[in-house]
Amino acid sequence: MPLSESSLKRLREVVDPDRFSTGISNLSLHAKDESFHPAHLPDAVLWPRTTEEVSRIVKICNEEEIPVTPWGAGTSLEGNPIPVKGGIVLDLQQMNKILSIRENDLQVDVQAGVVFKDLNKKLQRYGLFFPPDPGASATIGGMVANNASGIRAIKYGATKDLIQRLTVVLADGSVIHPGTLAFKTSSGLDLCRLFAGSEGILGIVTEITLRLAGIPPEFLAAVVSFPTGEAASLTVSQIIRSGLSPAALEFIGTDSVRLINKYTETFNFPESPLIFIEFHGTSKEGLAADLELVRELCEDNGATRFEAGIGRQARAKLWEARYNLHDFILREHPGLEPMAIDTAVPISKLPDIVAFAEKITRNRGIIGYVFGHAGSGNIHMPMMGDPNDTKSWAVLEEINHQLVEYAISLGGTATGEHGVGIGKIQFMELEHGESLEVMRKIKKLLDPKGILNPGKMF
Amino acid sequence: MPLSESSLKRLREVVDPDRFSTGISNLSLHAKDESFHPAHLPDAVLWPRTTEEVSRIVKICNEEEIPVTPWGAGTSLEGNPIPVKGGIVLDLQQMNKILSIRENDLQVDVQAGVVFKDLNKKLQRYGLFFPPDPGASATIGGMVANNASGIRAIKYGATKDLIQRLTVVLADGSVIHPGTLAFKTSSGLDLCRLFAGSEGILGIVTEITLRLAGIPPEFLAAVVSFPTGEAASLTVSQIIRSGLSPAALEFIGTDSVRLINKYTETFNFPESPLIFIEFHGTSKEGLAADLELVRELCEDNGATRFEAGIGRQARAKLWEARYNLHDFILREHPGLEPMAIDTAVPISKLPDIVAFAEKITRNRGIIGYVFGHAGSGNIHMPMMGDPNDTKSWAVLEEINHQLVEYAISLGGTATGEHGVGIGKIQFMELEHGESLEVMRKIKKLLDPKGILNPGKMF
Repeated sequence: MPLSESSLKRLREVVDPDRFSTGISNLSLHAKDESFHPAHLPDAVLWPRTTEEVSRIVKICNEEEIPVTPWGAGTSLEGNPIPVKGGIVLDLQQMNKILSIRENDLQVDVQAGVVFKDLNKKLQRYGLFFPPDPGASATIGGMVANNASGIRAIKYGATKDLIQRLTVVLADGSVIHPGTLAFKTSSGLDLCRLFAGSEGILGIVTEITLRLAGIPPEFLAAVVSFPTGEAASLTVSQIIRSGLSPAALEFIGTDSVRLINKYTETFNFPESPLIFIEFHGTSKEGLAADLELVRELCEDNGATRFEAGIGRQARAKLWEARYNLHDFILREHPGLEPMAIDTAVPISKLPDIVAFAEKITRNRGIIGYVFGHAGSGNIHMPMMGDPNDTKSWAVLEEINHQLVEYAISLGGTATGEHGVGIGKIQFMELEHGESLEVMRKIKKLLDPKGILNPGKMF
Repeated sequence: MPLSESSLKRLREVVDPDRFSTGISNLSLHAKDESFHPAHLPDAVLWPRTTEEVSRIVKICNEEEIPVTPWGAGTSLEGNPIPVKGGIVLDLQQMNKILSIRENDLQVDVQAGVVFKDLNKKLQRYGLFFPPDPGASATIGGMVANNASGIRAIKYGATKDLIQRLTVVLADGSVIHPGTLAFKTSSGLDLCRLFAGSEGILGIVTEITLRLAGIPPEFLAAVVSFPTGEAASLTVSQIIRSGLSPAALEFIGTDSVRLINKYTETFNFPESPLIFIEFHGTSKEGLAADLELVRELCEDNGATRFEAGIGRQARAKLWEARYNLHDFILREHPGLEPMAIDTAVPISKLPDIVAFAEKITRNRGIIGYVFGHAGSGNIHMPMMGDPNDTKSWAVLEEINHQLVEYAISLGGTATGEHGVGIGKIQFMELEHGESLEVMRKIKKLLDPKGILNPGKMF
């Protein structure tokens, strides 16, 4: 049901004329994220600049039962911000102010539309950084909504772990500020971690106080090749158990290694699975000792090449290659689109999930690139296909289904970091069982009319 | 209103006869925790042994609107498990089984009544430990309820941060299992962190899967004396900002140092504020380098003594003294009782809160011992008084009030780790503002009849 003229008029009055649009090009730009999920046009897009504007908009939408879908940078991978029920998209990208940097408390206040890469550029001069890194140029608001994490979560935690305080606009337009600026609290119910990761279905997060980390003075990285995916992933779980605290511990499968070799000039790795490990620390001596421990573990597991002592430049290049892997995959398969896989399992089950992923794609003749934030048990595998070829695309969906179900059977989760969005709704019952009913009740409590990002999560 | 004979009969049928009591001595044992809050007798005490028994008991209580107060070890400090509305106490101490240790996943499944010290004894042979440490012999269930943390939270996180999965009996007796065994998830609403820290008002946690840490192979500790509390606490905040990752960073004020000197044979510290810092790591080299950084920082801030290279035995003795500090205080003031202070502030505000605490006690002629988990911004100050001397006890309450309000005005919290219980209810409005209404609604949603630990938190 399209919005009435009177609704549009009320909404239009809240923001400047150039921050309201029903033009088709703006609607199209807010109809789809980076996933393969079908686009859906909103009826209007609004670009609020203040919490107060968001509050006024949401209040109107609640009164008139207009769906409100918040929008960050549109980089999500499960259709999280697709306005499947129409209504308005609330594009928060103009709420992009860094409000206050309190370096002595390792904290920063930002508006939700700040891009995390811009934030980290700004924080550099203070010797601080915000560790979670989803790869894409996401906004902090989007990262909070999805509990983004990425490569460094293994040491520094996910976005959710680093939230001190939120400003949240509730479904009725009222505004709350849950959280504290103290690092520790046992005071009241933890609303910050209820809203974080809730994908905008409980409220619209407009401002965030983040906890930061000091940029470590010393880095050390190593790339280690293994004969099999199993040997590599077994090593990953042993490194974690050993008490070492790597800042990144990535697994990259053979096919992905091949693409890195092909599309970069810098690298020529053996065409076999590898792990990339990075340590952050305060002294060269400490890092060197950690590296020795890792080397022993790797050699015990039959590592075929151990390349350490990687300098700052080579390290940056390697990370660049890791980040560009997604692009390499697209370039390798022109005309095809990726279906992302994102599950996480207990670390002892890493060898199982990697072997399973490789086996089912091979058996079905499907192209899949296994890699992931292995130290957190988080495995990705973009599978390439043509969404318009219904039959072959269905095979990808079937494999996705099998993999997620297998991960859950191992005690794992349907999504390690991409969120539920549209794509993972089908697994919520299996993963959460009776807990799902409690989640639904909380949704109903906080958004009785169901206006906030409808059609997501449940 | 005492329980009716028919209610008692129904409840009695759930458990073995020796696990149900209305005897005065058992009631008295469950009428009071370790705080100064007045005792209140329950009508009956039950010792369930399984989640199913808890479920049946809670279902009956819900039907008959009988208050249910869960009980761990009774070591809390804000009256958290005092059955202020009567009804039954659910003593979970017989649910003390360690159900499964999965060392390869760094995880353990425990029943709620397991004492954390017993757990860590058992885990030692696996080279693992559960880091939070509230000092007292608390149960894991109690630690989950209060989000206990203690000295090591600065490196390893609080209890809440280390929960993978819970088994929760809801107010209607139904059972849910929120959480995942994967280290990372973006799946659904975070119910684990909603129930954790909720002090039993939303549900009864009967089983917990905890994330563990590897016992570090190397330890290193230093004790540093400073001329003033301000210099010491300033150093603490600088250490955190420097990117170092201490496993403990404790502040001990002059009066507390004096008691440690007096009641131990081992120590003879200068009678001035000190900090105690401990590092955990994988190599002696790394720790030595960290220590050098700390030494420089301390000297820059005018440290008067820097005692490092403390061996395992001296370290253990120092921790023992730190843990026994509470007892020393009681021994020093026979006949008086302590009112605990527990606030946390942003770390840059440590010097302010320490100075404020010392000033207001001095001005009012009150005995107060400032110390705390300073690296997390968490400050304690037991003040000694006679609860029966209404007038002088009121002064302590006034100081407590002023300190908590000051902490909140600095952006901090009413309770860093003791929880709200009875004592901190008065500050919830000030700290949480409009968020409190959302908390109340969630309580009402999950416990519509208000049977679960009534009279607490709100």
